[in-house]
Amino acid sequence: MSPDVTGPAGRNGTLYVVSTPIGNLGDVTLRSLEVLRAVALVAAEDTRITRRLFARYEITTHLVPHHARNEEATTPALLAHLRAGRDLALVTDAGTPLVSDPGAALVAAWAAEGGAVIPVPGASAVLAALVASGIAGPRWSFEGFLPRRGRERRERLARLAADERTAVLFEAPGRLAATLADLAVACGDARPAAICRELTKLHEETLRGSLGTLAAAAAAGTIDRRGEVAIVIGERPAGQARSVHLERVAATGIAEGMPGPPPADPGELLAGLAAARAEVARLVADGVARGEAARRVAAATGLPRRRLYDAPDAGSA
Amino acid sequence: MSPDVTGPAGRNGTLYVVSTPIGNLGDVTLRSLEVLRAVALVAAEDTRITRRLFARYEITTHLVPHHARNEEATTPALLAHLRAGRDLALVTDAGTPLVSDPGAALVAAWAAEGGAVIPVPGASAVLAALVASGIAGPRWSFEGFLPRRGRERRERLARLAADERTAVLFEAPGRLAATLADLAVACGDARPAAICRELTKLHEETLRGSLGTLAAAAAAGTIDRRGEVAIVIGERPAGQARSVHLERVAATGIAEGMPGPPPADPGELLAGLAAARAEVARLVADGVARGEAARRVAAATGLPRRRLYDAPDAGSA
Repeated sequence: MSPDVTGPAGRNGTLYVVSTPIGNLGDVTLRSLEVLRAVALVAAEDTRITRRLFARYEITTHLVPHHARNEEATTPALLAHLRAGRDLALVTDAGTPLVSDPGAALVAAWAAEGGAVIPVPGASAVLAALVASGIAGPRWSFEGFLPRRGRERRERLARLAADERTAVLFEAPGRLAATLADLAVACGDARPAAICRELTKLHEETLRGSLGTLAAAAAAGTIDRRGEVAIVIGERPAGQARSVHLERVAATGIAEGMPGPPPADPGELLAGLAAARAEVARLVADGVARGEAARRVAAATGLPRRRLYDAPDAGSA
Repeated sequence: MSPDVTGPAGRNGTLYVVSTPIGNLGDVTLRSLEVLRAVALVAAEDTRITRRLFARYEITTHLVPHHARNEEATTPALLAHLRAGRDLALVTDAGTPLVSDPGAALVAAWAAEGGAVIPVPGASAVLAALVASGIAGPRWSFEGFLPRRGRERRERLARLAADERTAVLFEAPGRLAATLADLAVACGDARPAAICRELTKLHEETLRGSLGTLAAAAAAGTIDRRGEVAIVIGERPAGQARSVHLERVAATGIAEGMPGPPPADPGELLAGLAAARAEVARLVADGVARGEAARRVAAATGLPRRRLYDAPDAGSA
C-alpha cells in the first residue's frame, strides 16, 4: 500500500463515533450501549444531556465535556488518550456526530494520524427528515442552516435553485417563515417540499406541500413554532423553470452588484422582475411589511431591493 | 391550515419506515425492535434477509416481500392495509429505506394521501461512511452510483468537480479502480478522499488519501476487492483549481461533441489536454490498456478520446 494511503495503525486506541437519539430515547442501538459501557472514556458535547441517556440505560462510563468552546483545549488530551492505546467514544447532544458538530476536529485529527475511527451508526435528523418527507429523490444534499443574510445567503439560495436534487436544510422556528418565503422565490412556488418538526418525539409532525403553500402557511402563522425544523426540498419537477434571474446568477456566477453581461433576453429579466414584484405583493397581502417583503425577495432573487419597492398592491397583482 | 398542505389524517394506519443494520446485527435500535414486533405486517425487500434479523431478536411478525420487481403489484394492497387503519413497517435489506430503495413509491404514495409516515431512525451506510472518512465538511451530498458510461457519467463527474462540498458515492468493487481514476482526473489528484469497506463488520476498513494516491492504490490492486465500497470525496481545498476543461463544462454546460464557444484562453485548454494525456500515460504505466485508459480519461474530462490516444509513453510523461 502506498505510504500516502493511511489506514488503522493497529496498536492505538479506537475512536468510536457513536450516534445517539434525536428525541426518543428508544432510538439507541444495542451496540451503541455496549460501546458506551466498554470504552474508557466518553467525550460528550453536553454531559448533562448525555447523563440522561446514561441514567436511562445504567451506563457509568466517565464523561468529559468536549464542545465548541473547549475543543481546542481538550483535543490534545483526547488524542493523547487514544495514542496511549485507550478507546474513546464521541457523542453529541443528538444524532450522528459529524459536520458542524463539536468533535469533528478530533475525528479529523485522529484520522489524519491513521487512527481507527469506527462509526457506530444510529439516529440522524437529516435522514429522519428525508424519510419522513416522502419526497426524497435518489440523490440529495444536506445544506445545514442557510446564512442569515447578505450575499452568502443569496448565493446559497441561487445554488439551491440551480440544483435539481433533493435538499435538506435546518432552520430555527423563528426564521422558518422568512426562509420558506425566500426558498419559494428562489426555487419556485411549485417545487415540492416538506417541513418536519419534533421527529421521533410525541408531537412529531410532517407537513407537505409546495414551497408556495408552505411559505403561505408559515406566514399566516398556522405552523407550530416550537422546536427546530428540518426543511426538505423535493427534486425539481422536470421542465419546471427556475427563476430567470437565478438562472443567470447560476450560469455566470454574477450576482447583484457585480459587473457582468446582460441576460440573453431582456424580456426574460423583466418577467423575473414581474414575478419578484408579485411575490412582494403576496407577502404584503400576507401581512409582511413592504420593506421586509422587498428585503426578502431581493435576498432570494438577487434583484435590487429598490426595484421591488414599487410593487403593485396585492389587489392588482 | 391551507388545504394544499397535507399532514397526518389521523384514523388511517401508520407507515413506519424502519432502519435496519448495514452489517453488524447489533446496530438495531430498541424502538425498531418494538415497532417490528407491534405492527400488523412488515414489508421487506428480501424476506430471507429480514428473517435473519427476526430470528436473532425473536420477532414473529408476518413478512411480505416488497421489492423492485413486485412493488407495482404489491403497493395497492399495502396502501389498502394502511387505509384500513392497520400499521405497516417497511424495511430494506440494510440501512435506512429511502432513495433508490424499494418502498420509496409506497412511502411517496402514502405521504401524498396525507398518511402518517414515521421514520424509525437507525443505521445508514451513507452517514457511516461520512463519519468514518474523518474528512466530511459541514455540507455534503449523496450521489449514489455513478452512471457506468457515456454522457451521463461525464456530466455527473463534471458536477462533482464543480461542487466544492463533500460527496458520498457507492461503487461495486470491480469498478472501484476505474471510478477512482475518473474522479482523480475530474476533481484533481490532490482532492482528499476516503474509501470505506465493510463498515460495521469484522473486516471494516477505511483508507484515506488523495484521490490520486487512492486511484493508484486501486489500480495497483492493493485495495481489497470484497464488498461494496463507499467513496467519500472531501471538500475541495480552498484555491485548488478544477480541471480546466471541466471548469468550462460546468460553466457553460457544453461537453464533448456539443457545439459551443471556445474557452476563453486556448492555452488553458491545451494545459487541460496535456494533463489528461499525462493521466492516460499514468494509467498505461499502471497496466491499463491504452484504449481503456483513453476511454476513462475521456469520460472524466469530456475531452475527445481520439485526442488522448497519442499520449506520450509513461517514461516521457
